Amino acid sequence: MERVTVTLGERSYPITIEAGLFNHPASFEPLRAGDKALLVTNDSIAPLYLDVVRHSLEKLGVNVDTAILPDGEKYKTLSVMDQVFTKLLQGNHGRDTTLIALGGGVIGDLTGFAAASYQRGVRFIQVPTTLLSQVDSSVGGKTAVNHPLGKNMIGAFYQPAAVVIDIDCLKTLPARELSSGLAEVIKYGIILDADLFDWLEQNIDALLALDVQAMGYCIRRCCEIKAQVVAADEREGGVRALLNLGHTFGHAIEAEMGYGNWLHGEAVSAGMVMAAETSRLLGQFSQSDVDRIKRLLARANLPVNGPESMKPEAYLPHMLRDKKTLAGELRLVLPTAIGQSEVRGGIAHEVVLSGISHCLI
Amino acid sequence: MERVTVTLGERSYPITIEAGLFNHPASFEPLRAGDKALLVTNDSIAPLYLDVVRHSLEKLGVNVDTAILPDGEKYKTLSVMDQVFTKLLQGNHGRDTTLIALGGGVIGDLTGFAAASYQRGVRFIQVPTTLLSQVDSSVGGKTAVNHPLGKNMIGAFYQPAAVVIDIDCLKTLPARELSSGLAEVIKYGIILDADLFDWLEQNIDALLALDVQAMGYCIRRCCEIKAQVVAADEREGGVRALLNLGHTFGHAIEAEMGYGNWLHGEAVSAGMVMAAETSRLLGQFSQSDVDRIKRLLARANLPVNGPESMKPEAYLPHMLRDKKTLAGELRLVLPTAIGQSEVRGGIAHEVVLSGISHCLI
Repeated sequence: MERVTVTLGERSYPITIEAGLFNHPASFEPLRAGDKALLVTNDSIAPLYLDVVRHSLEKLGVNVDTAILPDGEKYKTLSVMDQVFTKLLQGNHGRDTTLIALGGGVIGDLTGFAAASYQRGVRFIQVPTTLLSQVDSSVGGKTAVNHPLGKNMIGAFYQPAAVVIDIDCLKTLPARELSSGLAEVIKYGIILDADLFDWLEQNIDALLALDVQAMGYCIRRCCEIKAQVVAADEREGGVRALLNLGHTFGHAIEAEMGYGNWLHGEAVSAGMVMAAETSRLLGQFSQSDVDRIKRLLARANLPVNGPESMKPEAYLPHMLRDKKTLAGELRLVLPTAIGQSEVRGGIAHEVVLSGISHCLI
Repeated sequence: MERVTVTLGERSYPITIEAGLFNHPASFEPLRAGDKALLVTNDSIAPLYLDVVRHSLEKLGVNVDTAILPDGEKYKTLSVMDQVFTKLLQGNHGRDTTLIALGGGVIGDLTGFAAASYQRGVRFIQVPTTLLSQVDSSVGGKTAVNHPLGKNMIGAFYQPAAVVIDIDCLKTLPARELSSGLAEVIKYGIILDADLFDWLEQNIDALLALDVQAMGYCIRRCCEIKAQVVAADEREGGVRALLNLGHTFGHAIEAEMGYGNWLHGEAVSAGMVMAAETSRLLGQFSQSDVDRIKRLLARANLPVNGPESMKPEAYLPHMLRDKKTLAGELRLVLPTAIGQSEVRGGIAHEVVLSGISHCLI
């Protein structure tokens, strides 16, 4: 069993990583006999894992209600979140209830924000079932829903009480979603950890083949990096912003193409290449490192170009709504080497447009 | 000028109380030249105060957008809050924007929750225009919207950066709303301050006549009490719950009658008498003190009975959804003397029903 602690004073919490965790009632601590909980999941995950998780919770003595939401990024909205509140109120859930998010990033983000907001805050537990949510969105307390005019624009910083990662889940994950998760894994290597990037170049095939040992190491290492960054900068005043490498470009792709048509990791993958190209144009990143990044992403079956139908000019209006934008000035995360990156403002829009245009087919 | 500080470490903030504040740009600190802000108000307040406030902000050099919402408790919803987000996104407001709540409790609660949630949290300033919001809801950081199944069920603890109280506003406040505010004023006397209760018995007529000196003292004293309680217990783990005297009963009235048909303070007024009667039935509050409370409320033109059409049994389902309810057990704030009160659980439902039945015509 791999275990990582997110250190945030009295709001610290454990991340547990192992194959088969869903079968063990003890995996779901701090829940205990007599507690009440609402298990939130979606209609794709429910047939696969709802019964086993509910069974373990019931064995633990937890009184469990269930909310099954429609699957997909386009349902990460205020009005779908309102259905969770309705379920909680109909079931007379009090301030002492616990929300359990069983699913990928959409379920985790929405359930986390619901937990932050229900009666001004109740406990919640993240049970991420996709690689992307296991290595990224379930850790760190960023919760949100989307608005038609921008992704993740409405939310809260709200930490879970525990993160429970059962690696066995990945066996039922569609190949495209596995690759989408690898985009965030590769991101950690680019922004902060050259050794991880090297390791990924050696082990990407083992990860694609779901080798349990490689995957366990990979998830643990990513959670460690994320936990360190979050402990240093919970509310994204500084270093945490680096985790957004590729995301400003990627969000533009997701918004323009309609949420869910490009997977998040796919959009981030193309976005990371755009950031790398922009950095190269600024003279602070080498062509050979751009190529290394593109090669690794391609081996992970990820796109290294933006959508054919999307002109560079179509990116900017979305990018200017990015949360890192201050007083109308675009701020981008740019790699300065493999394993190093920085947040940079004041870049001329034409340079950004040129960076994007290097990533069109 | 009266000034009270809410002491919460680096989140401390000032409450400024004076007649004519809206005319002075300096009233709106910490806003300053070059800042961007969204002024949120409703269609009743806008014709009265929007121009003067906007003019002062523009004189200060603030770049101000405006969102005018429909007036009324029934619009304190997630979907109306979503209109505020749309306005913010359409105006390209970034994380460095400030939301200004110009209005009563509905505008303050909704705008505060919007500020807590927009891009996971932006600055906001409370500019309460009703007595109720000046003495209660604008101070302390409780923000929320309603759900069809319960009032204030969705929200956040989120402190403003400043509270700006212009007493002149009360001149345009309908008499019924002035009385509604006095219900919360009287509440402070009952739960924590026997001297204030005595003072109110002497000065209630001066307050109803909007005597500036009496009103200035009254608002300042209420803000002081609220600030002390909030500083001691921001998240309502203990003493802060006392501020809910009458509210569990009152929320049942509001929900059953339809939000906005009974004003909040009217429902709280009847609810406080119900709490006093329940406490008397438990042998811990005297009939003469019940009568003192009823007399003072009646002099403030407030109801001392629940709605005729509402049977005692109709209260309980709403009351069991109260946020103080833990594991299905009703917990009530009950006065133990004028100026003293406690939170108490484990009271038999028939005693509560009997307390309510003493307050039906």
